[in-house]
Amino acid sequence: MPKFSVQFVPDGKTVEVDGPKTVMEAAELADVYVNALCGGEGMCGRCKVIIRSGEVRAEPTAHLSREEIRDGYVLACKCYLDGSAVVEIPPESRLEGAPRLTDEDALRFGSTRVLVGEGGPYARDPLSRKVLLSLPGPSLDDNVADQERLYRELRRQRDIPVMQMGLVQLKQLAELLRENEWRVTATLGQRGGTIEVVEVEGGDTSERNYGVAVDVGTTTVVAHLVDLNTSETVARQATYNSQIQYGEDIIARIMFANTREKLDRLSSCVVRDINDLIAGLVGAADVSLQDVTYALCAGNTTMIHLLVGLTPSAIRLEPYVPTALAPPVVRAAEVGIRINPRGLLGCVPSVACYVGGDVVADVLVSGMARSEKPSMLMDIGTNGEIVLGNKDWLVCCSASAGPAFEGGGISCGMRATRGAIERLSMTKGCQVASYSVIGGGRPTGLCGSGLIDLVAEMMRNGGCLERNGALTADHESQRMRDGEDGLEFVVVPASQTGTGKDIVVTQADLQNFIRSKGAIYHAAECLIEHFGLEFGELENIYISGGFGNYLDVREAVMIGLLPDCPVERFVFIGNGSVQGAKTMLLSRQALEEGEAIASKMTYIELSTDPKFMNEYTSALFLPHTDIEKFPSVRLELRRRHIEV
Amino acid sequence: MPKFSVQFVPDGKTVEVDGPKTVMEAAELADVYVNALCGGEGMCGRCKVIIRSGEVRAEPTAHLSREEIRDGYVLACKCYLDGSAVVEIPPESRLEGAPRLTDEDALRFGSTRVLVGEGGPYARDPLSRKVLLSLPGPSLDDNVADQERLYRELRRQRDIPVMQMGLVQLKQLAELLRENEWRVTATLGQRGGTIEVVEVEGGDTSERNYGVAVDVGTTTVVAHLVDLNTSETVARQATYNSQIQYGEDIIARIMFANTREKLDRLSSCVVRDINDLIAGLVGAADVSLQDVTYALCAGNTTMIHLLVGLTPSAIRLEPYVPTALAPPVVRAAEVGIRINPRGLLGCVPSVACYVGGDVVADVLVSGMARSEKPSMLMDIGTNGEIVLGNKDWLVCCSASAGPAFEGGGISCGMRATRGAIERLSMTKGCQVASYSVIGGGRPTGLCGSGLIDLVAEMMRNGGCLERNGALTADHESQRMRDGEDGLEFVVVPASQTGTGKDIVVTQADLQNFIRSKGAIYHAAECLIEHFGLEFGELENIYISGGFGNYLDVREAVMIGLLPDCPVERFVFIGNGSVQGAKTMLLSRQALEEGEAIASKMTYIELSTDPKFMNEYTSALFLPHTDIEKFPSVRLELRRRHIEV
Repeated sequence: MPKFSVQFVPDGKTVEVDGPKTVMEAAELADVYVNALCGGEGMCGRCKVIIRSGEVRAEPTAHLSREEIRDGYVLACKCYLDGSAVVEIPPESRLEGAPRLTDEDALRFGSTRVLVGEGGPYARDPLSRKVLLSLPGPSLDDNVADQERLYRELRRQRDIPVMQMGLVQLKQLAELLRENEWRVTATLGQRGGTIEVVEVEGGDTSERNYGVAVDVGTTTVVAHLVDLNTSETVARQATYNSQIQYGEDIIARIMFANTREKLDRLSSCVVRDINDLIAGLVGAADVSLQDVTYALCAGNTTMIHLLVGLTPSAIRLEPYVPTALAPPVVRAAEVGIRINPRGLLGCVPSVACYVGGDVVADVLVSGMARSEKPSMLMDIGTNGEIVLGNKDWLVCCSASAGPAFEGGGISCGMRATRGAIERLSMTKGCQVASYSVIGGGRPTGLCGSGLIDLVAEMMRNGGCLERNGALTADHESQRMRDGEDGLEFVVVPASQTGTGKDIVVTQADLQNFIRSKGAIYHAAECLIEHFGLEFGELENIYISGGFGNYLDVREAVMIGLLPDCPVERFVFIGNGSVQGAKTMLLSRQALEEGEAIASKMTYIELSTDPKFMNEYTSALFLPHTDIEKFPSVRLELRRRHIEV
Repeated sequence: MPKFSVQFVPDGKTVEVDGPKTVMEAAELADVYVNALCGGEGMCGRCKVIIRSGEVRAEPTAHLSREEIRDGYVLACKCYLDGSAVVEIPPESRLEGAPRLTDEDALRFGSTRVLVGEGGPYARDPLSRKVLLSLPGPSLDDNVADQERLYRELRRQRDIPVMQMGLVQLKQLAELLRENEWRVTATLGQRGGTIEVVEVEGGDTSERNYGVAVDVGTTTVVAHLVDLNTSETVARQATYNSQIQYGEDIIARIMFANTREKLDRLSSCVVRDINDLIAGLVGAADVSLQDVTYALCAGNTTMIHLLVGLTPSAIRLEPYVPTALAPPVVRAAEVGIRINPRGLLGCVPSVACYVGGDVVADVLVSGMARSEKPSMLMDIGTNGEIVLGNKDWLVCCSASAGPAFEGGGISCGMRATRGAIERLSMTKGCQVASYSVIGGGRPTGLCGSGLIDLVAEMMRNGGCLERNGALTADHESQRMRDGEDGLEFVVVPASQTGTGKDIVVTQADLQNFIRSKGAIYHAAECLIEHFGLEFGELENIYISGGFGNYLDVREAVMIGLLPDCPVERFVFIGNGSVQGAKTMLLSRQALEEGEAIASKMTYIELSTDPKFMNEYTSALFLPHTDIEKFPSVRLELRRRHIEV
């Protein structure tokens, strides 16, 4: 086979390829990131690249406009290399920078310290604990064995049920005890119902004990480094889940992982991401990896499967069966996670295929499972989850919203990263008055919150948008025009954007968007009606998830994404997944409550509920076909003399 | 360095050596066994070999007679090779054949089936159990995860407390369940307080589940293969512990194992021995290694340390501290034991440095820990152990008898293997009337039981032996003569032996022998007096151990090794170590009782008891200075008109 050389700009990376390869495969070899929401199937149209020079064969696609084709755009996954080439990855196809830091979460939503220890509902009792032991040296009157001497002292200090020590550690014990004159530090790790003496170190190392709480998200991975002695969070980092290159959403990744080899590839991706985060955390906090003795991960069921290497294939097919809801606690090294070589790795248990440990963590953090009155929790994202209940009962459902809130299926949509418009306001007549761009500079697209603002402002400022989401053709604004696929609204003209192209929303974008918001709202409504309740009876509505964090409640009510309740009832819990994992890392009691939440929660499959399917269309209005359900929206629109 | 070639006969093995090497080291390289009780220190004189040709330098030694030196004998450990050589290993320096088979134990002492199951004290509940599961396939109404579905069905069938499954197994679960249409067999293994799902196999393999019970002795290793479904012992094998080449007794081996590398070498020896036994067992019983799912080992504390690789050095030094009394249950493969790759390995817990799991197993099998009346258990060997107690209390001590019963320290002593005189009778005037040789043919030495018979018969037939063990110089027999080291008695003249040399007992041999029997008896007496009891109050005296098995009670009482109790009170329990391990392998309840015995038993250190040290010499008589303690002996001697 001839060999070709492929250079990627602006990365500057070059790779040699042989055999028939797509540009996407070459990029993968070169370790250059290209968006691929569909996993390289030519479906999503997000892997647009520009062929600067070289010979290629590109399959025809509806995802490229005539202008783009003229400018050299191809879909990387459907473009084959026939010779050496130079390929440019344009900004909209790249993953730029790290996700928003979650530091602000802690400030905005309070830290875990409130939940654990004095004043909080959970007793401080970390899953990993270092105990300094000054053992009495052996004598003829007391010549119990080394291991049993250590156990005896541990039991004297703490009430410990079952105990075990690995053979590797035990083999070193005799020498270690004597070299350190019987003064050692034992690290005790929780392993299911038993306590393991994970490690014994010479002297007093009890001051240095850290754990990592990880939120393993489909899109982002967030890790917090926690001082297990003080409960302080000493560092926080976030990164994108690099599995994204094999598929944007859960379903695409499950489909990709159809062999052990490909499953292992996905596993290595997220393990590397977590290791990078941990390396960054210990660097930032000046902590030794040796002193990180426990990692607790929360994530949706599929992400946990992919992390520990469990077959996920049955998750996406009826009757939707995961391999395990609660994988065993293992040595972190067994999965490839680099902390203390003998440190442990646990996962917050899941409820069902589409309700994972991240939701369990959310519920724990919200406090709804400790309250008499029922509350609702909404995790808004591509895979939305909604939980309803109180301390006695919990039910949940999932709502497949689609990727619109993360920028998917929206022509100028993007994630909430640098260049995204996140806030937007209009004046009457739908004139865009102002917008704010993440990271500053010229905008390159619209993220979910920007899109919600846009639609809400279009509703408020009348005339350009029907209640069913149709753009109004005869609108006065010059921003409304006929595009390739029908009507479209120019949000920012090309002259002011970072891509040199107009940022537009099309009629199709709006339909996708309305389907997403409608799926979430309708699922919440079905769940609450199923149990004979009304939104007004809820004590609180907790909003969690990466997207939820940046939601403006009033705008979200305006478009009919959130129910029309008093604003003060909405409580943002931030990244409940990492906060919940941290709470459980710091308190065995909290972990047990998490386990109780997971086993108590009942999953309702809405897709088989006739009411859900029949009445779904009523939510495909702005805000709803039944405006009586949104009295505050009606009031505002009436005040603005807009017909409702 | 020049290279030499060393050939060993009669093995016929040849080895190339370079550098300065002893004959012992060359033999080790050639994998030719040479006795070395002291671990190659030139102390024991048991590694006599004959240089047939070649250049060597031998250090002077008192262990060789003038005749032997003339005939080319050297000590292998103190003879250096200066050139190529041919070395003969004479019969007395070889380890011949396998130890006596233990099949007869089962016949003579009853099998474990009496203890486990119907009619026995312990419920049948093997440490490893296979459970056939026909799981309901998942449906939308029942889409619990694979792992939890398996656990649910297991819990439905059995009351199981905690459960865990390894990640390696869990990773294969989804495919395995579906390939086998939800019909699988789970192997459940006891692991401390928890149950592990050790393995899941497709289809019904529940008919095939085996365990191995192993007695890891200092000298011999005995293994029984047990069908865990029927409790039948399907095969038995025994071999010598090949650690013997690095030291005959426990102390020599502990001293040898003073580095991790040498400890690992000892560990590999016994692991290989056990693997050889298991390979032989599964071959004999036509069982697949895959179907052997548990191994339970009983042994003295040092042997268990050496098996699993724990540092034994503190065991031999005051205050006598082992590394662990109860090593954790581990995967057998972690220690190198070859059964099912995921099968487990457990050890019967020890009581103290010199009272191991073998004694715990003995006590369990004897039943003394279930009885109201006190009994005594005596394990007679190089390291004797004595236990006293009933269902409420148990005390034990160890008695360092020395190696006389195993042939050590006795000029013509040998183990109870082929060529050993095991029974002997005399007529009046100390004429040897008859003897029986293990394996038939000409005798090469005397084993312990032969030695006891010899001494008892010398006592009975008067005149040649004083009560203090001194040979009588003026005895009429022509068998009494002056040897190199004083008086000696010729048991079998050279013309009738297998070695072509006289089999003699010397004055020094008799002193060693009396010290050994005195140590055992005196320890038993001290223990019983310490608790205000008398031998006559004991319900039973249980005799265990490889040597004990072949003891003639009347002869042992005659010489003052065993107390003078009615013969029917002595109960032989055979190899209680392997029988006890088997009982615990078949019954979790029995294992728990074993653990209770180990933790309840109090170890008394006799060497610090003034009474023990002061009165020890009174036991250095035949049978005792105080003949009142041995009324039946007095009666018999008087009847024979022998002055007592």
